[in-house]
Amino acid sequence: MPALSVALGARSYPIHIGAGLLDDPFLYAPYVASRSVAVVTSNVVAPLYLSRVEGVLARAGARVISIVVEDGEQAKGWPTVECVLDALLAARFGRDSLVVALGGGVIGDLAGFAAAVYQRGIEFIQVPTTLLAQVDSSVGGKTAINHARGKNMIGAFHQPVAVVSDVLTLATLPERELRAGLAEVIKHGLVLDAEFVGWLEANLERLLGREPAVLEHAVRRSCEIKASVIAADERESGLRAVLNFGHTFGHAIEAGVGYGEWLHGEAVAAGMAMAAELSTRVAKLPRADFDRIAALIGRAGLPVRGPKLAAERYLDLMRVDKKAAGGRMRFVLLDSIGSAVVRGDVAEQLIREILAAATQ
Amino acid sequence: MPALSVALGARSYPIHIGAGLLDDPFLYAPYVASRSVAVVTSNVVAPLYLSRVEGVLARAGARVISIVVEDGEQAKGWPTVECVLDALLAARFGRDSLVVALGGGVIGDLAGFAAAVYQRGIEFIQVPTTLLAQVDSSVGGKTAINHARGKNMIGAFHQPVAVVSDVLTLATLPERELRAGLAEVIKHGLVLDAEFVGWLEANLERLLGREPAVLEHAVRRSCEIKASVIAADERESGLRAVLNFGHTFGHAIEAGVGYGEWLHGEAVAAGMAMAAELSTRVAKLPRADFDRIAALIGRAGLPVRGPKLAAERYLDLMRVDKKAAGGRMRFVLLDSIGSAVVRGDVAEQLIREILAAATQ
Repeated sequence: MPALSVALGARSYPIHIGAGLLDDPFLYAPYVASRSVAVVTSNVVAPLYLSRVEGVLARAGARVISIVVEDGEQAKGWPTVECVLDALLAARFGRDSLVVALGGGVIGDLAGFAAAVYQRGIEFIQVPTTLLAQVDSSVGGKTAINHARGKNMIGAFHQPVAVVSDVLTLATLPERELRAGLAEVIKHGLVLDAEFVGWLEANLERLLGREPAVLEHAVRRSCEIKASVIAADERESGLRAVLNFGHTFGHAIEAGVGYGEWLHGEAVAAGMAMAAELSTRVAKLPRADFDRIAALIGRAGLPVRGPKLAAERYLDLMRVDKKAAGGRMRFVLLDSIGSAVVRGDVAEQLIREILAAATQ
Repeated sequence: MPALSVALGARSYPIHIGAGLLDDPFLYAPYVASRSVAVVTSNVVAPLYLSRVEGVLARAGARVISIVVEDGEQAKGWPTVECVLDALLAARFGRDSLVVALGGGVIGDLAGFAAAVYQRGIEFIQVPTTLLAQVDSSVGGKTAINHARGKNMIGAFHQPVAVVSDVLTLATLPERELRAGLAEVIKHGLVLDAEFVGWLEANLERLLGREPAVLEHAVRRSCEIKASVIAADERESGLRAVLNFGHTFGHAIEAGVGYGEWLHGEAVAAGMAMAAELSTRVAKLPRADFDRIAALIGRAGLPVRGPKLAAERYLDLMRVDKKAAGGRMRFVLLDSIGSAVVRGDVAEQLIREILAAATQ
C-alpha cells in the first residue's frame, strides 16, 4: 500500500503503515544516510525492537546511538527530556542530527519535544509501537511533557519527517493497551466518519484478535482522518479541536486519579461517554446514537463512566485544561455519530449533572 | 519614525524604536486588550520599569500579572523557565494569553522560550531594556536557555508579535553593558554594511555619551540589517549564519571562563578580533581592515584578545558549538569590512595559531 501523506506544504511527511515495516531500510534511508541518529526508546520496548531498529538504521547509513529511558507516563517530564538532551550533547550531535522515537505515545511525545528544543529544533522520525501512538500521537506534530498542574502543559508543535507504523509490533502490546488504543480509533469515527464507526462495530472482535489486515485498515483510516484534519488546521485554531472529543473530561480523569492510574485511552473512553451524554442534552445527539457509542466503548473493554471524584475537583482540572479559552471550558460535542461541534457555552450546572450521573 | 517590519509572511511583526515608547499604550493595545498578560522581568529591571509597563498594559486593557526572576546569565536555565511556567499555570493562563519580556537578552531569551513551550506556544512581546537586546537578541525569534555543556543549546525559533525598544531605558544601563551591546552593533556593520562602520567610527563618542538620537540611529540601523537577514533566512540555513561573526570564538570564551564572567558582548568582541585575524590568513581581509576593526573595538572599551585558556579547551568548546555541522567547525570570516563569508574548511593548526597569538 502507498504511504499516506500529511499535507503541510514544505513540512509534509509520509506515514508508512503495514506489516513488517520496522526494519525496511528504504523507509529510513532518505532521512538518515550519513547522519548522526539517536534512537530514543523505553526499557520495555528496547528488548523487543531496539536492536532491529539500530540494525536497519546502520544499514541505511546512519551513525547510531541509543537512549533508553524509563517506561511509563511518569517519565514524561523535564528530567527525562534533560537526560535525552544531555546524551545528545555528550555524543556531539549537531543541528543536522536526527532523533528516532521508538515506542508508544509517551516516547513519541517526549522524544519529539526533545527534538523540538535541541539546538532550537532537529528532525525526528516517529516509529510508534502501540496502537494509541500509531493512530493518534505519532501523527500531527504535537509534542509535550507533563507538569504537576496539568498534562501536556509544556510542549511544541514539531512535525516528524516521517512515520513508520509496523502493525506487527502490536502483537507484543499488552491487552489493556490495545483496548486503550481503540478509544482513539473509535473517536476518529465518532467525530468525522459514521461509516468507519459501522466498520468498527462489525470488526471489533477481529481487531481485538489482532488480525494484521484488520489492524492495518483501522490504523490507516484513523490516520487518514487525522491527517485530513491536521492539513486543514495544523495548530488547532479551529477544526483540529474536534480531535479533542472526550479529552476535556479525559484529561481531568487522568490528572484527578494521578497520571498512570488510568491509561490515556481509558480516560478518553470514559470522557467520550460523558461528552456523548452531554451531547444528548445540549447538542442534537439522539439517545439511540448515545446507546451505540456506549455499547461500542463497552465491547472494546473500555470504561463508560469516569471515576468518582468531587465535582469541584473535576471542574478545577477541566478549567486548567489548555483547551480552556480565558478560563472558559470548551467541549467537543456530537450532533450525531460522525458529526462534531465545539461549544463554549455549556452551563456549569449541566456539567455537574453529568459528573453526578456518569461517574461511578 | 515609522516602525520597522520583520517580513516573515503571516508572522511578520513591527519593531518600534524611539525615545519614550515604554509606556505608549497604542503600541501594546493591538495585542493585549482583553487578554491575560504576564510581564516577565528581573529583580534589577523591575524597580526601574515594571510599574510603568504594568500600568501601560492595564490601560491597554490587559489583565496583568508579573513574574520577577533573578537577574543574570545564571538564571537562563530550565529551573527559571519552570518557575515562569508554574506561575502561568497557577494564574490559569490559557493559550490566548501573552508574555511580555521586559529586560535584557537573558530575560528575552528565557521568557521567549517559556512562551514558546507553554501549552505548545503562546504569543509574546519583546520590550528590551539593554542595548544588546535592542540591537540583537530581541529581533529574530531565537529563544533559548543554557545547558551545562553549552550556551543556548536548548531553545526554539519563536517570533515575537512586536518589539518595543525605548532608547531612554538605556540611560540606566551600566557602562559595561552599554559597551558590550556595542559589540553587536559593530558586528552588524562588519558583516553587511561598511558605510555603517564608518558612521560608527565617526559617532562612537556620542554613542558612549548616550545621546538619544544617536542611540536611536544605531539601534534602527542594526535592526534593519538584522531584519533583512532574518527575512531571507529565518532558521539559519544559510545567510543568517553571517550574524554569528565572532560567535564561534565568543561562545567558547563565555563557556571557557564560566558563564557570566565575560559579558556576551565582550566575548563576541574578542571573538570578532580573533575571527578578523583568521580572516587575514584564510579570507581576503586586508591587514588595514583588521587594524580598523581592532581600533574600533578597542575604542568601544571592548577586549580585542581572548582569555588565555588551553587550546584544547577552546577547540573542544568550539566543536560542540551548535553551528558546528557534524562536529566540523564553521567560521564566519570577512573578505573585507561589510562582506562576510562562511567557511567550513579552516585547518585546525591555523586555529591553534590564532589561539596562541590572539589570547592574553
